[in-house]
Amino acid sequence: MASVFGEKLKISIFGQSHSEAIGVCIDGFPAGFRIDMEKLSAFLSRRAPGSGAHTTSRKEADLPRFISGVVDNVTCGSPICAIIENTNTRSKDYSNLREVPRPGHADYTAFVKYGLSHDIRGGGHFSGRLTACLCIAGGICLQYLEREKGIRIGAHVSEIAGVCDKAFDMVSPEIDKVKTELPIAVLDENAGERMMEEILRAKSELDSVGGIIECAATGVPAGLGEPMFDGIENNIAKIVFGIPAVKGVEFGAGFASARMRGSENNDEFCMDGDKISTKTNNHGGALGGISSSLPIVFRAAIKPTPSIAKAQGSVSLTENKEKELEITGRHDPCIVPRAVPCMEAAMAVSLCDMIL
Amino acid sequence: MASVFGEKLKISIFGQSHSEAIGVCIDGFPAGFRIDMEKLSAFLSRRAPGSGAHTTSRKEADLPRFISGVVDNVTCGSPICAIIENTNTRSKDYSNLREVPRPGHADYTAFVKYGLSHDIRGGGHFSGRLTACLCIAGGICLQYLEREKGIRIGAHVSEIAGVCDKAFDMVSPEIDKVKTELPIAVLDENAGERMMEEILRAKSELDSVGGIIECAATGVPAGLGEPMFDGIENNIAKIVFGIPAVKGVEFGAGFASARMRGSENNDEFCMDGDKISTKTNNHGGALGGISSSLPIVFRAAIKPTPSIAKAQGSVSLTENKEKELEITGRHDPCIVPRAVPCMEAAMAVSLCDMIL
Amino acid sequence: MASVFGEKLKISIFGQSHSEAIGVCIDGFPAGFRIDMEKLSAFLSRRAPGSGAHTTSRKEADLPRFISGVVDNVTCGSPICAIIENTNTRSKDYSNLREVPRPGHADYTAFVKYGLSHDIRGGGHFSGRLTACLCIAGGICLQYLEREKGIRIGAHVSEIAGVCDKAFDMVSPEIDKVKTELPIAVLDENAGERMMEEILRAKSELDSVGGIIECAATGVPAGLGEPMFDGIENNIAKIVFGIPAVKGVEFGAGFASARMRGSENNDEFCMDGDKISTKTNNHGGALGGISSSLPIVFRAAIKPTPSIAKAQGSVSLTENKEKELEITGRHDPCIVPRAVPCMEAAMAVSLCDMIL
Amino acid sequence: MASVFGEKLKISIFGQSHSEAIGVCIDGFPAGFRIDMEKLSAFLSRRAPGSGAHTTSRKEADLPRFISGVVDNVTCGSPICAIIENTNTRSKDYSNLREVPRPGHADYTAFVKYGLSHDIRGGGHFSGRLTACLCIAGGICLQYLEREKGIRIGAHVSEIAGVCDKAFDMVSPEIDKVKTELPIAVLDENAGERMMEEILRAKSELDSVGGIIECAATGVPAGLGEPMFDGIENNIAKIVFGIPAVKGVEFGAGFASARMRGSENNDEFCMDGDKISTKTNNHGGALGGISSSLPIVFRAAIKPTPSIAKAQGSVSLTENKEKELEITGRHDPCIVPRAVPCMEAAMAVSLCDMIL
Repeated sequence: MASVFGEKLKISIFGQSHSEAIGVCIDGFPAGFRIDMEKLSAFLSRRAPGSGAHTTSRKEADLPRFISGVVDNVTCGSPICAIIENTNTRSKDYSNLREVPRPGHADYTAFVKYGLSHDIRGGGHFSGRLTACLCIAGGICLQYLEREKGIRIGAHVSEIAGVCDKAFDMVSPEIDKVKTELPIAVLDENAGERMMEEILRAKSELDSVGGIIECAATGVPAGLGEPMFDGIENNIAKIVFGIPAVKGVEFGAGFASARMRGSENNDEFCMDGDKISTKTNNHGGALGGISSSLPIVFRAAIKPTPSIAKAQGSVSLTENKEKELEITGRHDPCIVPRAVPCMEAAMAVSLCDMIL
Repeated sequence: MASVFGEKLKISIFGQSHSEAIGVCIDGFPAGFRIDMEKLSAFLSRRAPGSGAHTTSRKEADLPRFISGVVDNVTCGSPICAIIENTNTRSKDYSNLREVPRPGHADYTAFVKYGLSHDIRGGGHFSGRLTACLCIAGGICLQYLEREKGIRIGAHVSEIAGVCDKAFDMVSPEIDKVKTELPIAVLDENAGERMMEEILRAKSELDSVGGIIECAATGVPAGLGEPMFDGIENNIAKIVFGIPAVKGVEFGAGFASARMRGSENNDEFCMDGDKISTKTNNHGGALGGISSSLPIVFRAAIKPTPSIAKAQGSVSLTENKEKELEITGRHDPCIVPRAVPCMEAAMAVSLCDMIL
Repeated sequence: MASVFGEKLKISIFGQSHSEAIGVCIDGFPAGFRIDMEKLSAFLSRRAPGSGAHTTSRKEADLPRFISGVVDNVTCGSPICAIIENTNTRSKDYSNLREVPRPGHADYTAFVKYGLSHDIRGGGHFSGRLTACLCIAGGICLQYLEREKGIRIGAHVSEIAGVCDKAFDMVSPEIDKVKTELPIAVLDENAGERMMEEILRAKSELDSVGGIIECAATGVPAGLGEPMFDGIENNIAKIVFGIPAVKGVEFGAGFASARMRGSENNDEFCMDGDKISTKTNNHGGALGGISSSLPIVFRAAIKPTPSIAKAQGSVSLTENKEKELEITGRHDPCIVPRAVPCMEAAMAVSLCDMIL
Repeated sequence: MASVFGEKLKISIFGQSHSEAIGVCIDGFPAGFRIDMEKLSAFLSRRAPGSGAHTTSRKEADLPRFISGVVDNVTCGSPICAIIENTNTRSKDYSNLREVPRPGHADYTAFVKYGLSHDIRGGGHFSGRLTACLCIAGGICLQYLEREKGIRIGAHVSEIAGVCDKAFDMVSPEIDKVKTELPIAVLDENAGERMMEEILRAKSELDSVGGIIECAATGVPAGLGEPMFDGIENNIAKIVFGIPAVKGVEFGAGFASARMRGSENNDEFCMDGDKISTKTNNHGGALGGISSSLPIVFRAAIKPTPSIAKAQGSVSLTENKEKELEITGRHDPCIVPRAVPCMEAAMAVSLCDMIL
């Protein structure tokens, strides 16, 4: 396994959906940083399943317990370990999945890799629940980047089931205008409502939907990142693809730039007072892997939740024959809204690793 | 800098566009493998600039010289170092770029990072020429994967300037049907011709175009890759974003999956004789970061060549004021065709690193 | 911080002497391995402080709690996290150490690195107590190496305060004859008794003593390890120097080989039945960084416990002037006996990382 | 293979004794540093085989050619690659070694690992000749540390064949007084002469001798290095064990500290003007893995040259039976003098990696 990310800031995520606890060990975080625990808790609650119709009704008291590295809410320089105890897990829901893998899930590939010892309950280590650990690490990094480096990171749901939110202004992304208090964090409340309608429609049809999240960081100084394999894009992509269900990542104009002319896609340099800037930001904040001081902007495609109530074709791993599968239990018809803070967390961890 | 990729197979790329030589050091490649030098040479020539109207007329005799690790064309287990001498470089073309950075290039970010010592001639270490080194390493890995592991990798130009080639069949990608002998490697020759027209049109308008490349690997056994941060997608994305001009990477159905229903996107498992397979391959060969035995398929978006002949706005770094820039010299109006073998090379290096 | 070790098997150690818990996250351990918890517990108790006169009287109930990665004592392939809750910590003993650093301890260097936020209580992350985490990881690796690979690892106290135990036979180290049930694990019980006398003498004189531990692994197949920087010696030395108080590491004949002639030091190859072996083992099981199938043998020098009851010269960090220091509290007059399982654990983790 | 060292400064060494060239790729070295090529050349010549009776008479024109990363002797921020062409190699000397491995060499272990493809000529990648590459990287790092960081590194032969040089003063090592112009770099010229007598005596008896090198760095600021596995000692040991023939490494008082009392070994803190220091330096400059500002001092044990002219017992790998071996060709009866700059280089690379 390799649930470890980073060079200078190493995070090591552990836990399964139904293990005693899940958690994260953060190695390399600077000493003397006061964690605003209330803010961290508020951040984590954005990822936690709510009571809305679009989320699972499983209650998660996802309050992390810092068992090392933090004294009186201040980091002491030693590795930080935070855990979340697992409670209220209904293991019986998953009893038949060891035999019949769920389409779109890691059940089958985990079976091939780990055999019968794989902890399949609730998806085990592959569960989306593990992103809570990423969010703990990311939540601390977000605070550090903002307070110590003047870097701010924010994301919004850009699209769900074909319904689009207003896009970020690439030069001045409206991070502060994202309505994070809504069930779906968007810039345009109406778009959010229509997204919700689509989610509910899919749910009522025993189905699920996917979407796209747009994430931006402002205040990143020019010169961060390395050419070739350790650039801004390489490192962010590496961690973002670690969030379950992500199927694509693009920076700046991304795939749209493939259809532009050079004269249209190139961002001309200009003076912004004394500061060198660009008039547009199709490059998404990185040139040659190195930050340009323009906002770093990426979008990630999230596939529809694979767990749907509809009957699906699958196979019996014990009998080696095709077998229909009906998934019971509670499942989000759309995980995109809850993935928004995960994107912010991933970007924060990645930038912290590069900036330290 | 961090022009090093891989864990078990480490490649370290060096050189600047106008340094004495460029090259790659490959550490961890198995001993006893006979490199088919003719095949490698043919592979490299696919990346080399041709004589066609769509490519730079600079002649590159990109024949690598193996200065270590290979005895009588057989790897000896020691690190392999291959270099390509740089010749026929017209340094004067680039003389004014240190003062006025080219939009869309790394000139400015490299200046911030390395100061005046940065070797700006020909783009220095950021030059697309350095992908020749990736192709040397990748070319060897391609041979190894095919001969020793039964894994085949192929790519084609999926789109240029909005003109689309036929897509790969995701379950059985037609790797053998890609017309690599054409100036633009496509499945559908007509599409290739129309792409070429668009390239020439852009050129005549002193402009450039971008595109999308689709790359597939068949024969990858199930169980390769690790969950979270060392999965198939994480590692391929990390190396692919190391190829200049890549702005997005997607796997399987990618961004399109964001608009699908779960019932539509999920790949149902089925029996293919005695073997477990899926009927469709929207997942692109990896579930939970681990290969499923279905073809691994990714697409990469390539922005239009930033070097265009049209005048562009920029700034003078010495005078800190805006200044118009006209780029002279030879430049590809479209680098997408030459990037096709680079994608194959990147995927081969990444899979080799995971499989060794 | 960088309390992370390994490539294929990554262990990440966290905790401070007085944090809520200490622990280790083990990433990359194979699935399906049954941990013999009783055996692990017995192994850990060898490191735990006993009731003997030579150890601190602080009671440590060092039973690890596996919060992830293990289901019904069987590894499931996911990262394993084990923690030990800290209890019975007498924090007040250490109140003055933030001002006046203890000679021979990391108090001063930690202050320089982490400032006043450093958790100095009980030595914080630098405490010898953290070796319990190494022993958890190592204890599991020892079981794995023995059961799955036929590799056995054992260590004994080679020397304390100048009193020497019988040395291992380098070709057939008597791992089974080490008397681990004694307060000091030795081959020769008499030597152990004389060592204990020296420890008690030092204690009565408010002082401490150091020593040397010899550790051997048998059954390591030829061909393990890499040349140059990832060889057997490099990797073992890297982890062994992570055990507090280690000041030197030598392999095979070690420093003694520096005084030998080549004809004396060279280990001539011979046939041992059908197997190639060497008659002697001055090389300590590795040639060119690669294992030879002979036992891997190293010795580590452990300095005397720096915490002594005698008054010592130090400085006041707040007043920047010299100040005498008297250390109160409980301290081992000799940590060498408790370090024996730590050496076995370190070697096991290192070999596991190379063999996986 | 893993001939790669470092995190922030990565060096990747390639080449075999008889390959076209040997060399090193240095990734991560800062831009804008002027390399004093004359000084580098002088440093490399200290490692080169001389004309003295104690060294091989093979002439090596070990002048590196910088093929990338350096423009007009100034680093440009891109990876630096330097190569040394191999000339004047007498391959025929080594013809029978593939069949009969030399005792004390890596011939056998390389055969197990790489099979018949291993390039055995001259020891291949295991040849001491490869340390020239380490010395190129280290020579540049030495200049950087001295000019940019005020850190100076020097080493001397501490012992050969039992004849000892004066030891460094651990608090103020006499780096400037090492007589590097002599065939054997020592503090005490008489000791050096007696060492040479021992070398010549061994040579005349068709034998070889080993020794110990002491290496020190002054000016290292307090706070460098990380606890546990990335400390000063861990990292230096990891690279030093990459130098062929090293069998032990100790820091500060090293193995001698194992025989001291705590009161004797502890270095009491004191004020040195306004600066906190210690009166003695038994700790060798690192406490808890972190530098204390005292000189970092290590000693490395070098085994006697395994290639001796005396007949030795070995085995035939093809016939699987014992067979006597007589090694012909030119071999140093003692490599210790030539290893002195290698130690300085290793320490410089390791410190640079930690300080960048």
